[in-house]
Amino acid sequence: MRHDDRQNDELRSIHIEPDYIMHPEGSVLITVGRTKVICNATIEERVPPFMRGQGKGWITAEYAMLPRATAQRNIRESSKGKIGGRTMEIQRLIGRALRSVVDLEKIGERTLWIDCDVIQADGGTRTASITGAFVAMVLAFQKLVENKTIKELPIKTYLAATSVGIHPEYGPILDLCYEEDSTAAVDMNVVMTGTGQFVEIQGTGEEATFSEDQLASLLNLAKKGIRELIDVQKSVIGDIEKAESTENRSEG
Amino acid sequence: MRHDDRQNDELRSIHIEPDYIMHPEGSVLITVGRTKVICNATIEERVPPFMRGQGKGWITAEYAMLPRATAQRNIRESSKGKIGGRTMEIQRLIGRALRSVVDLEKIGERTLWIDCDVIQADGGTRTASITGAFVAMVLAFQKLVENKTIKELPIKTYLAATSVGIHPEYGPILDLCYEEDSTAAVDMNVVMTGTGQFVEIQGTGEEATFSEDQLASLLNLAKKGIRELIDVQKSVIGDIEKAESTENRSEG
Amino acid sequence: MRHDDRQNDELRSIHIEPDYIMHPEGSVLITVGRTKVICNATIEERVPPFMRGQGKGWITAEYAMLPRATAQRNIRESSKGKIGGRTMEIQRLIGRALRSVVDLEKIGERTLWIDCDVIQADGGTRTASITGAFVAMVLAFQKLVENKTIKELPIKTYLAATSVGIHPEYGPILDLCYEEDSTAAVDMNVVMTGTGQFVEIQGTGEEATFSEDQLASLLNLAKKGIRELIDVQKSVIGDIEKAESTENRSEG
Amino acid sequence: MRHDDRQNDELRSIHIEPDYIMHPEGSVLITVGRTKVICNATIEERVPPFMRGQGKGWITAEYAMLPRATAQRNIRESSKGKIGGRTMEIQRLIGRALRSVVDLEKIGERTLWIDCDVIQADGGTRTASITGAFVAMVLAFQKLVENKTIKELPIKTYLAATSVGIHPEYGPILDLCYEEDSTAAVDMNVVMTGTGQFVEIQGTGEEATFSEDQLASLLNLAKKGIRELIDVQKSVIGDIEKAESTENRSEG
Amino acid sequence: MRHDDRQNDELRSIHIEPDYIMHPEGSVLITVGRTKVICNATIEERVPPFMRGQGKGWITAEYAMLPRATAQRNIRESSKGKIGGRTMEIQRLIGRALRSVVDLEKIGERTLWIDCDVIQADGGTRTASITGAFVAMVLAFQKLVENKTIKELPIKTYLAATSVGIHPEYGPILDLCYEEDSTAAVDMNVVMTGTGQFVEIQGTGEEATFSEDQLASLLNLAKKGIRELIDVQKSVIGDIEKAESTENRSEG
Amino acid sequence: MRHDDRQNDELRSIHIEPDYIMHPEGSVLITVGRTKVICNATIEERVPPFMRGQGKGWITAEYAMLPRATAQRNIRESSKGKIGGRTMEIQRLIGRALRSVVDLEKIGERTLWIDCDVIQADGGTRTASITGAFVAMVLAFQKLVENKTIKELPIKTYLAATSVGIHPEYGPILDLCYEEDSTAAVDMNVVMTGTGQFVEIQGTGEEATFSEDQLASLLNLAKKGIRELIDVQKSVIGDIEKAESTENRSEG
Repeated sequence: MRHDDRQNDELRSIHIEPDYIMHPEGSVLITVGRTKVICNATIEERVPPFMRGQGKGWITAEYAMLPRATAQRNIRESSKGKIGGRTMEIQRLIGRALRSVVDLEKIGERTLWIDCDVIQADGGTRTASITGAFVAMVLAFQKLVENKTIKELPIKTYLAATSVGIHPEYGPILDLCYEEDSTAAVDMNVVMTGTGQFVEIQGTGEEATFSEDQLASLLNLAKKGIRELIDVQKSVIGDIEKAESTENRSEG
Repeated sequence: MRHDDRQNDELRSIHIEPDYIMHPEGSVLITVGRTKVICNATIEERVPPFMRGQGKGWITAEYAMLPRATAQRNIRESSKGKIGGRTMEIQRLIGRALRSVVDLEKIGERTLWIDCDVIQADGGTRTASITGAFVAMVLAFQKLVENKTIKELPIKTYLAATSVGIHPEYGPILDLCYEEDSTAAVDMNVVMTGTGQFVEIQGTGEEATFSEDQLASLLNLAKKGIRELIDVQKSVIGDIEKAESTENRSEG
Repeated sequence: MRHDDRQNDELRSIHIEPDYIMHPEGSVLITVGRTKVICNATIEERVPPFMRGQGKGWITAEYAMLPRATAQRNIRESSKGKIGGRTMEIQRLIGRALRSVVDLEKIGERTLWIDCDVIQADGGTRTASITGAFVAMVLAFQKLVENKTIKELPIKTYLAATSVGIHPEYGPILDLCYEEDSTAAVDMNVVMTGTGQFVEIQGTGEEATFSEDQLASLLNLAKKGIRELIDVQKSVIGDIEKAESTENRSEG
Repeated sequence: MRHDDRQNDELRSIHIEPDYIMHPEGSVLITVGRTKVICNATIEERVPPFMRGQGKGWITAEYAMLPRATAQRNIRESSKGKIGGRTMEIQRLIGRALRSVVDLEKIGERTLWIDCDVIQADGGTRTASITGAFVAMVLAFQKLVENKTIKELPIKTYLAATSVGIHPEYGPILDLCYEEDSTAAVDMNVVMTGTGQFVEIQGTGEEATFSEDQLASLLNLAKKGIRELIDVQKSVIGDIEKAESTENRSEG
Repeated sequence: MRHDDRQNDELRSIHIEPDYIMHPEGSVLITVGRTKVICNATIEERVPPFMRGQGKGWITAEYAMLPRATAQRNIRESSKGKIGGRTMEIQRLIGRALRSVVDLEKIGERTLWIDCDVIQADGGTRTASITGAFVAMVLAFQKLVENKTIKELPIKTYLAATSVGIHPEYGPILDLCYEEDSTAAVDMNVVMTGTGQFVEIQGTGEEATFSEDQLASLLNLAKKGIRELIDVQKSVIGDIEKAESTENRSEG
Repeated sequence: MRHDDRQNDELRSIHIEPDYIMHPEGSVLITVGRTKVICNATIEERVPPFMRGQGKGWITAEYAMLPRATAQRNIRESSKGKIGGRTMEIQRLIGRALRSVVDLEKIGERTLWIDCDVIQADGGTRTASITGAFVAMVLAFQKLVENKTIKELPIKTYLAATSVGIHPEYGPILDLCYEEDSTAAVDMNVVMTGTGQFVEIQGTGEEATFSEDQLASLLNLAKKGIRELIDVQKSVIGDIEKAESTENRSEG
């Protein structure tokens, strides 16, 4: 049993509150245990310079933490005058993950901005961001479909992420909170789709290493967790795969 | 009647939720109509270089908006690599206002950081920040008193702020929402104490001017609003003046 | 009597030298006691992006101090790589104040840049900047009228600024020098027009507060001072209100 | 057969030239096909602030490309005034990977800086950097052992990295050149030790996804490639595992 | 005859006004024709890190132009957030030149800061800066001698600078104004001492070249001009060489 | 005899390796003693904004050192977030020197970028950069002539650079290595053409001065050295002056 009475393969309690902030096209507050992230989606009617003229859209993400999202206050990146390496890594990861399940041609020359702002952190902020950002993105695209800006939802499948790791005491565990994360020897973030395909695997043994067998157990835990996360997403945004195929039929 | 059915001298609905974020020493979510600001207070066990060795504390504030706190997405100041003039003006104002009601000698060589992060904006974010920051600050200092780090609450009196302005249609009005603010000819932010003293008056007629009589009506509106805001603060943090005097007595 | 033998309601000696620098369209050296500011006005034949296509002009100001304008050498903001909060506050104030007395539609899609460079500082640099900048601006617009670029002077009325404050020893005083400013409990900058209207009131009690009565005395001192400052402006640029009305008549 | 006549499981030609630059404590030029990276190791006699007083050392890496290392000229990051996200990701990866095979306690309060400068790029620059950096690091530590600054080589095992990917035409392939990399659907960088343990797995399907079976083939290719890379390392720095155990014996 | 009726070997009118700004330890306004530079000298009671503990002083210079010192308004370097290459070149040159005539051991562990701020530019601003800075520096050191902080003037000899160039119409000319400078094929800045030694020669043929004979004529013009500039310096600061030797005698 | 057995008027061994890096239009590795610089030339099909519409080309240079090109590791300018004064001075010098021997009208609206990256430094890196950059530039232009983008080589003559200085022990010497450079009283960089004309003379006596006679000896040494450097350039790129005149003839 883990210190918070979870099984090794048990997620923390998950909640996704849609329409959390009034202005964005899509907005959720995702709560994963004590980690809370506001995910806002903005539709911009143009693409960045490197994408112009291709008739395709783009998806980009930004990630930040409030200074006191953590136990110690962090200096704001705006005060430092630059964005740190960890932040860049995370926002690149979120953007890449979202793009893998979107048909960019279907959104036209538009940019979807995803802003993930962690207001309270207790481990797993990047994976919570991806899971929440997917829902905020779908909400924004659903709005575009409703107002007939685009013909159909450009989403291929669900997308969610979780962390897994090897804990010196518990062994392989799912969905690490901060305390577990800071003592784990190996830490892996996994992003998967609704069809069980991998999108990203980022496994790292900071000052440690791991074997093929350990890798296999970690991936199994991740698959279980992501299936459950996608169930929560479905309870918020409905069955987008069915919706899409119906829509496709009515197009025919 | 204003577009949201308020009287000219009527505040929007105010709510202050204490202990909103788990990590900070003091934390509130203040809601003023549709404006929502998270105010977090951090105690740091040292003062900035220019204050060292004086046996006194310091209070400093930072202010930011989430990119989609507003109708249009704003570029993050961390991405721009610098903090804008408006942000600087606001955070200097918040810090100055808080310091005016604190006895800095009573907090020892400590810094109180106040972080005001606007998660949803509909006008009046800087005055909501001051009103909420005061409560977060008191919560943090109460914790220091409780754990006997400091002997008594270093607060002289309550502190709150509101905006007033001259609207082309409604005339002088209290607590402007974004739509009112963007059409008002004159805009004034007023910070006052629980004893009815002024701390800051910032009145500006962007491309307009105002007379002495107009100034007088604006200040009257502000006084009324601030009295009501302080009542809300009292409902959250209790009667700190009484508390303090009691404590003083027990010291005697 | 104050330490420099002034009455409480007495300005320091004021001098405005027109055409101080040869290149700018308008240029003055304003001397307020020992404070000296070069105010240069530049006409640029375009407006910033957010103003384009509206057929209106724009006015923007920049403010800086030479490193040894002050008793201690200040690090240049160019060396620091960023502009400080105090500088931003001041340049925003100067721009806003000037725009309040200019009919932006009459200057067409042009930008007036005002550069206020303090070469010697002894308190009141921001208010001296506004008073001097107004003259430099009028000189530049007079040149545009002379060479028939614009039809008439786009100025609605005079504009000047001064500081007032509450000194622990002298009480309410007008036009604070540096020594007075650094000991004053309350410090207020007031910008007014030639018709006695307020443009900006920025009153602040850094670690102090002030009552309504004190506010009234401060505003009275400011009104007296600003009337005298406008007299000095008139001696340099003539009676622009008469000039304008004459011109208007000949337009009729 | 691939366009350069390689088998799917075949590395490009590998060459590691030791002592390439005269000043650094350790220096190699690593050539992987047409990719060329200078890896320089510097020993600094102190650790960064967050490591002070722990009696342990630190390893940190920097990575850069010459502007014309690539087909199109890249703007220097020094000219942009900031380091891009890709660069940050890579230098964090290199540092993390190296630290996983070093006993930081054995190097005392010293920092090992690794500078990886790509002078010619043709895909796989980050994995070539890791493979080369390991050798430069060992050369630098060998010098410390020789001059008796440290007692024994603080290296636990060999470390090398390669890329694998799924190519639309060739299927799963080892050691992608630039052309292959830019057409591959899935791209994975793998860092492994001399004992066959994983250190990092970074697999990403930019706008694509991959299955468990595909993951398995990719990891097999990576293992084969890394074994061969370690053989090349051994030909340059000798058998450090044996050396170490011998040394340990002679210590006994 | 040149367009301003000067002979080819004639300086513009030179004026050096001492004690121009009240706060600095040394201050002059130097006027060379229509070029005007404020040169302020500051004594700081410490040296930069790389000079600490050597018992010697340091001299460093900064140079800037007001935005409208020139015919076109320049963007402030503080707004750009960085100092341009031209500015850096000039401030390095001024610092190097001043250090060549100062005995740094005699000033103890102090830094002399020289700030050269061009308020009006018409060519030759860097050489006017050096000539003026030398006087401001001597004034500051004289103050240190007067208040017995240092025993004797640490100046070895006078120092002045001028520009020479080859003009397509006039041939080799002395002390180029802006118009001449912008049409000259070759442009050379020369810094010399009171004893006729060279300190700096910076000759450049932007998109042109020059012969040995041309170099010889240019250096002759420079020598004549610098002798005359030093005469002007002497009229302000007196005969420092005699002063120094007298002082030395009285020390004996 | 110097410490490396050279005569006072003797260059270090010089080697220029053409086509060093595969991607650039022109590329060399220049070796001057132990100083090694990669010089890459890039042709860009547009000019910077200030040159547009003039039908002429532009040449610009960038210069950098690898962190361990030197005995002590230098912090990267990309990490500092800004380019230092020394770097700016050098890249401005290289660009200016190259432009002096190119007929910019003959290259059309194109920019030639020269990147000089010092991989190993032992004094004279800026002059080695110029000498190598000239060859890289000619190689790039020869490619443009070959593929008929431009009609003829736009080069007027050869261009090379060296350093000379006055050493306290050896007297005037040619081509200073780092050790000589750091002890020399006077240091001069000279850029000359194939026709024996001066392009740049930058002589500086850091904390020292020099006489006319010393200047004459230094220039003589420089002339000898530059003639020899141009001989090495000819062995790599052939006789461009003859080539050009032949080509001109065939144009007739």
